Amino acid sequence: MKKIAIDAMGGDNAPQALVEGANQALRDFADIEIVLYGDEAKIKPLLTATERVSIVHTDEKIDSDDEPTRAIRKKKQASMVLAAKAVKDGEADAVLSAGNTGALLAAGFFIVGRIKNIDRPGLLSTLPTGDGRGFDMLDLGANAENTPHHLHQYAILGSFYAENVRGIKQPRVGLLNNGTEASKGDPLRKETYALLAADDKLNFIGNVEARDLMDGVADVVVADGFTGNAVLKSIEGTAISILCQLKKAVLGGGLKAKLGALLLKDSLQEMRKSLDYSSAGGAVLFGLKAPVVKTHGSSDAKAVYSTIRQIRTMLETDVVGKSVVEFSRTEEEK
Amino acid sequence: MKKIAIDAMGGDNAPQALVEGANQALRDFADIEIVLYGDEAKIKPLLTATERVSIVHTDEKIDSDDEPTRAIRKKKQASMVLAAKAVKDGEADAVLSAGNTGALLAAGFFIVGRIKNIDRPGLLSTLPTGDGRGFDMLDLGANAENTPHHLHQYAILGSFYAENVRGIKQPRVGLLNNGTEASKGDPLRKETYALLAADDKLNFIGNVEARDLMDGVADVVVADGFTGNAVLKSIEGTAISILCQLKKAVLGGGLKAKLGALLLKDSLQEMRKSLDYSSAGGAVLFGLKAPVVKTHGSSDAKAVYSTIRQIRTMLETDVVGKSVVEFSRTEEEK
Repeated sequence: MKKIAIDAMGGDNAPQALVEGANQALRDFADIEIVLYGDEAKIKPLLTATERVSIVHTDEKIDSDDEPTRAIRKKKQASMVLAAKAVKDGEADAVLSAGNTGALLAAGFFIVGRIKNIDRPGLLSTLPTGDGRGFDMLDLGANAENTPHHLHQYAILGSFYAENVRGIKQPRVGLLNNGTEASKGDPLRKETYALLAADDKLNFIGNVEARDLMDGVADVVVADGFTGNAVLKSIEGTAISILCQLKKAVLGGGLKAKLGALLLKDSLQEMRKSLDYSSAGGAVLFGLKAPVVKTHGSSDAKAVYSTIRQIRTMLETDVVGKSVVEFSRTEEEK
Repeated sequence: MKKIAIDAMGGDNAPQALVEGANQALRDFADIEIVLYGDEAKIKPLLTATERVSIVHTDEKIDSDDEPTRAIRKKKQASMVLAAKAVKDGEADAVLSAGNTGALLAAGFFIVGRIKNIDRPGLLSTLPTGDGRGFDMLDLGANAENTPHHLHQYAILGSFYAENVRGIKQPRVGLLNNGTEASKGDPLRKETYALLAADDKLNFIGNVEARDLMDGVADVVVADGFTGNAVLKSIEGTAISILCQLKKAVLGGGLKAKLGALLLKDSLQEMRKSLDYSSAGGAVLFGLKAPVVKTHGSSDAKAVYSTIRQIRTMLETDVVGKSVVEFSRTEEEK
């Protein structure tokens, strides 16, 4: 039985989305137990599950505009902090939150703690591709600066994730760069390229460009946190903007366009679904001693459910445990 | 009369798209003269314009897979090189090419030459926003590395461009960063923020995130070449992928979906048009002594025409001359 600690008070739709997502997950997965941290008076009425679930009451919570590191240190009874402490103390196996991203990163880093020999945990998400297969990218912004050594660790972690959680054998690892030729990029990219090419355990396919990510050019895409964050936000912003314009075009196109949209409705919903990467779960702060997963602040119950399913797979495959072994071995080899 | 030197042999649709774009531009703009560099036997049959146009014949051209700097040095009679030399020698006022981007950057840098006190010319494009207003972003990849000083110069150049070429008074300048708070980012961003905030001549609005670019959060967006390139390619890749999926959804959606698409056709074309940033012209290598403009390799006659119109505006407003004055003044103040 794996126990997942959920910060029930984080995110725009808390606690409803968190509790309802938990209800559904408990129905579907008989091998998980959930602990909800937060305001019992608000959580209890929403909770339909009766088995393998408990509430740890607290009045305190971290707000979206709290300064992350400070909030973690000062608000010792916040729902997010208690959930992270439960993992640290061995009372739970993983943390899920839809709250303040920076605070969750800080809680992961300072409370749950890093895997030995991993310098800078990175934020990993599975992003959508046209063929529905998706790709894993990291770091998506846990760090503002990275070294070639960090990026090498992200390649190993990303491969572990793709192989274990998504079931991809020998995942193709690409380095995000400003061109595909081996000689491309700044010193960070050139040195990283050399490290990845020299690592026989990786299926390194070379440099990849941001233009080709959604075509599925690689299964794992390695980036520094600054660039990864900019690329993630560009993809999100462009997708939202185009779907908005599509809506505007329909609404402004008169009766003919509206009728057309009605006929196209099912097809468009199918498309939206393929773009909706919340079905692949949340963003994992990978490189910590346990799964610490952030689901989007605007997550609904379905997205929370998907993230619980993702965490269950991470626990089932013991992807974190395997990473611990791998990185302790890495150090011995030196 | 302003003279524009066109590399007629570069790009996927050369020389047809280049010559046809020139034909139309010569019809519409009585105040420009065009010189076409390339294979006279191929250009002549396509040329319908008879006045203010001439051909400089050459057999040599730079291919898309040529190594840029080497190509510029070895292929001294290439159409692109001759066009750049014409500007250097004062025989033409600007260069347009749809060919090898790296080679055009090298030709701009080594043949046309930098404006005094500008260290690293940057690649600038006007990208689309939902409201049709657009934003100018630089550097889009002329450089793999930049300093805060370069980024400060891009803010000034971008403002000049937005004000002169797009007619935006006091353009809002944003620094692309991984969050909007002033304290965000790596040392490059923090130092740049301080420089931009201290420059009274700029209308600096602070940090902007990639997610908000297409919402028109700023008129000028300043980025280092590596990040700018990744963001540009992410926007392009996402837009192409979504439009592809839209098409696939319609084709796979049966008769109902196809009928819907037929009814929506006009509205969708309107949307495509608003996303098509080739109507704003090509990418300017800004910071050189004359306009050096790259239009997309796949440009058709319409995109070439738009780029000629853009170059005409740059020459008419003398945005390069004003930059020369500004940067010579900057140096004197020191």
